[in-house]
Amino acid sequence: MASFDPSIPDGTNRSLEIAVSADGVPEMERTYTIDARCGVAVRVCAGKHLTVINPSGNQVCDFWIFAAADVGEYSSMEHLHTALGSIFPKVGDGVASNLRRTLMTITKDTSVGVHDTVIASCDHARYQQLGCTQYHDNCADNLRQALIAIGLKAPAIPAPFNLWMNVPVQADGSTSFMPPVSKPGDQMVFRADMDVIAVMSACPQDVTPVNGVGVAPGILKFYVTES
Amino acid sequence: MASFDPSIPDGTNRSLEIAVSADGVPEMERTYTIDARCGVAVRVCAGKHLTVINPSGNQVCDFWIFAAADVGEYSSMEHLHTALGSIFPKVGDGVASNLRRTLMTITKDTSVGVHDTVIASCDHARYQQLGCTQYHDNCADNLRQALIAIGLKAPAIPAPFNLWMNVPVQADGSTSFMPPVSKPGDQMVFRADMDVIAVMSACPQDVTPVNGVGVAPGILKFYVTES
Repeated sequence: MASFDPSIPDGTNRSLEIAVSADGVPEMERTYTIDARCGVAVRVCAGKHLTVINPSGNQVCDFWIFAAADVGEYSSMEHLHTALGSIFPKVGDGVASNLRRTLMTITKDTSVGVHDTVIASCDHARYQQLGCTQYHDNCADNLRQALIAIGLKAPAIPAPFNLWMNVPVQADGSTSFMPPVSKPGDQMVFRADMDVIAVMSACPQDVTPVNGVGVAPGILKFYVTES
Repeated sequence: MASFDPSIPDGTNRSLEIAVSADGVPEMERTYTIDARCGVAVRVCAGKHLTVINPSGNQVCDFWIFAAADVGEYSSMEHLHTALGSIFPKVGDGVASNLRRTLMTITKDTSVGVHDTVIASCDHARYQQLGCTQYHDNCADNLRQALIAIGLKAPAIPAPFNLWMNVPVQADGSTSFMPPVSKPGDQMVFRADMDVIAVMSACPQDVTPVNGVGVAPGILKFYVTES
């Protein structure tokens, strides 16, 4: 049987301390900052909108959505591919769950629309493979911690929707990790189609250039609005 | 907290009755048949080889690998994409786990090498969306049942490695479900890099043409060899 527990972080950072509130309920219209290299979870009720902001334009956001009624239902990129007939979501597209329901819908994207849905979140093993000998902040642990910080446990580490991450897929299937093509202040807006918990990680990747060349991983901002 | 249990099938078929043995240990070199629309799990010890055969050439095999020591570690297409720098695995490539270890390595592929790693397994919800009003056999349930049949529980429904499934990905990211381009008798061989449980589902999809046009979903065959 399974003994690996996906909810337990390999290490910790300030993600455990920066929750919007003890239960993840935000103040409406308040802009929150996600510290560089950290993750935050936020509850978004059905019909409300979540705006995620990329202040530098270089910063990738690993993004997951969980159904508030049962976190065993969560965003699934492989189900999204079937639902959209595409690996590149765009405005108007829903984010599908592992139960093939739409969790949230993309209602606005001020960037050119380059995002990734095929690459795993960075994690402890990834940085070990990249030659890091010490603990390195990582998106999988940020997800785990962001949920712990609002009293929940990650039931899995779902494949992420990597906002602004630039991973071109060539005709032969080859992929490459490129700097973002988004611009400072780019925003994505998601409408909740049911009560959800959205988790955002300011990707701490600084070994490959996915968060830009010659720049340190930066912050993200977000807020929730009634409509 | 999560209450959805990924191990419980939405319905059942003969997958519950066709295990190679009570614990999934096969007879070496014996050729087993996977009934049409069903799934089977088989244990493959480190160093041994699993050959999967596509008798008709039209039949897709949804394929998953679990670490025998802990089924919480399993094949992960999103981690595979990072490991390979590609969404199309080929001979010599390892199949990565969610812990970024190589579970098995592709040592032979007699087909032209068209396989899919971005599309979810068919499941109960998929067939409902395709208009089916009755229970339809599906690969997710075949995985669940194949593990139950050898005394195990699926800890998740990982994104599958869809052998011989032809889903071209265009430059704009669009995907389409096309008939296989494999030929009768095509084989893939996988070497186990650790003790694993491999699960194969003879995909019962007969609403889209992924298993060929005008043909019923068919059988698969497989055997395990010492080297």
